[in-house]
Amino acid sequence: MYRSEIRVVDCTIRDGGLANDSQFALETVQAVYRAICAAGVDYVELGYRNSKAMFSPDEFGPWRFCDEKHLRQVTEGVDPGNTKICVMMDAHKSDADDILPYDQSVVDLIRVATYVKDADKAIHICSRAAEQGYDTTINIMAISKEGPPFLDEALQQFEEETQAKAIYVVDSFGALYSEEIHYLIERYRMYIKTKEIGVHCHNSQQLAFANTIEGVIKGANFVDGTLYGLGRGAGNCPLELLLGFLKNPKFNLLPLLEVIGSKIIPLTEEIEWGYHIPYMLAGILNQHPREAMAWMAGKNKHDYAELYARLTDETGA
Amino acid sequence: MYRSEIRVVDCTIRDGGLANDSQFALETVQAVYRAICAAGVDYVELGYRNSKAMFSPDEFGPWRFCDEKHLRQVTEGVDPGNTKICVMMDAHKSDADDILPYDQSVVDLIRVATYVKDADKAIHICSRAAEQGYDTTINIMAISKEGPPFLDEALQQFEEETQAKAIYVVDSFGALYSEEIHYLIERYRMYIKTKEIGVHCHNSQQLAFANTIEGVIKGANFVDGTLYGLGRGAGNCPLELLLGFLKNPKFNLLPLLEVIGSKIIPLTEEIEWGYHIPYMLAGILNQHPREAMAWMAGKNKHDYAELYARLTDETGA
Repeated sequence: MYRSEIRVVDCTIRDGGLANDSQFALETVQAVYRAICAAGVDYVELGYRNSKAMFSPDEFGPWRFCDEKHLRQVTEGVDPGNTKICVMMDAHKSDADDILPYDQSVVDLIRVATYVKDADKAIHICSRAAEQGYDTTINIMAISKEGPPFLDEALQQFEEETQAKAIYVVDSFGALYSEEIHYLIERYRMYIKTKEIGVHCHNSQQLAFANTIEGVIKGANFVDGTLYGLGRGAGNCPLELLLGFLKNPKFNLLPLLEVIGSKIIPLTEEIEWGYHIPYMLAGILNQHPREAMAWMAGKNKHDYAELYARLTDETGA
Repeated sequence: MYRSEIRVVDCTIRDGGLANDSQFALETVQAVYRAICAAGVDYVELGYRNSKAMFSPDEFGPWRFCDEKHLRQVTEGVDPGNTKICVMMDAHKSDADDILPYDQSVVDLIRVATYVKDADKAIHICSRAAEQGYDTTINIMAISKEGPPFLDEALQQFEEETQAKAIYVVDSFGALYSEEIHYLIERYRMYIKTKEIGVHCHNSQQLAFANTIEGVIKGANFVDGTLYGLGRGAGNCPLELLLGFLKNPKFNLLPLLEVIGSKIIPLTEEIEWGYHIPYMLAGILNQHPREAMAWMAGKNKHDYAELYARLTDETGA
């Protein structure tokens, strides 16, 4: 699949940061940055720029805040090639005042993550970022829980009231099948006329890469991946698989293979991500992986029947 | 997705046997059999019935041969419900004389695995099995290496010269993308008019489950999976994901969750299967996982760049 409009976003450090409170060593972030630039990937997301009033810097690492001085420690001395930097701001957990003027920052793109219910907060941050000179996207999380009429209303607002380059389908729970990806992109396209559509998938049911492909086939031009699928729970769409599929000659797989071997594989000793039955159950049941992650950290993690009973317990419902 | 014609085949012991020379403990096979029956899965494949002249019983376990006495040790005392037993015979590695008359066997279905070049051998075994009273399927391996005109010719022969219930697309190398699954099923359908089409996928690119879904969407009615994706290299389509997608009320997920926790998870200490960069590279390059498996067993298994160079080395080509 080759289409020159396609933009690939690596979100290893940002999304992976949900699995370790954004506590990556500086040299890991530097190595990832260098590899993504050398691979010719369009964007590298170095973390969240979330509010220090809502996340304690004692508990969370620097990649939860992406202070400019930390970003510059990463970028210093590296030829970025055509790779641009993005950060993510949660609509309900960040402060528009934390956005520096564009010419004081190494960031190019600010991605605003939001639930449908927080659409107006997202628009506020998105507009502020645009005023300051940044490109923006809006990433609608937990999309498997959303639908008409409120989703439609939010899409209409994002189309009319923002300058976002792309509006994303974010399958936070890894719950969607290909038919639903197709449906959602068609639904988005009813409202999103002047912007691109993006796809960000989770791997609870081993469908993150497949659903990203399905998004591309249906016309999505912003697609996300992480190195070796690093991410919370079952993880994300593996970036290396995505580049293999896209076949755009501007991409180079080798730097990704090298950094996976040298920096990402060692992380498997600290962070457990990938396919596990608890995450699969949460995905099938269209639930946040929170309870499955707690189960995985417990001593009976392979007692799947008990977890299934808990996840489907409707006592009091 | 619900379609009453869909038949699900568990091939945990058969396909998983490629990862351990079919050396499963009897109690593991018994537990898998009981769980598959309790889950209401249509078929359970207990191994290969391959030739002892070609595989030494000193080296390979009983599930490479599926002697009747071994099968009966598994089935004895278990209520099979609606689950039927199948075994696989490799067209080029088995002997038609090893097929007992149907009434002397617990087997219902004999699946003949073949390359296109061995189509006539497959037809011979398939016909002998049908004469003896069995249902049959033909499973065309390494389909990502096949194409017109020889594939078409084989399909035409299988349609006209066998009584097989289904002809399978087998993505042995985990190389196919959804568009190719769609294409192949359409191609098969040009010739296969009176039989079902089957899909069996490998997970080198994390697409085994996704491609099985795509097969079902395009009309394939025989689909394969293994518990927790157990299999050689990256493994197979996880059966538990498949049942979650199919939603047929005759299936029960719980016995599968229990046997995965009690019998399959412990196997992860002996057999390493699942997503790894070497298998992913073999998949992207449409190659047998043989060299990737050897690399994984070596001491530099995370030196992916070196493996990539070897897999793409065209010296002398």
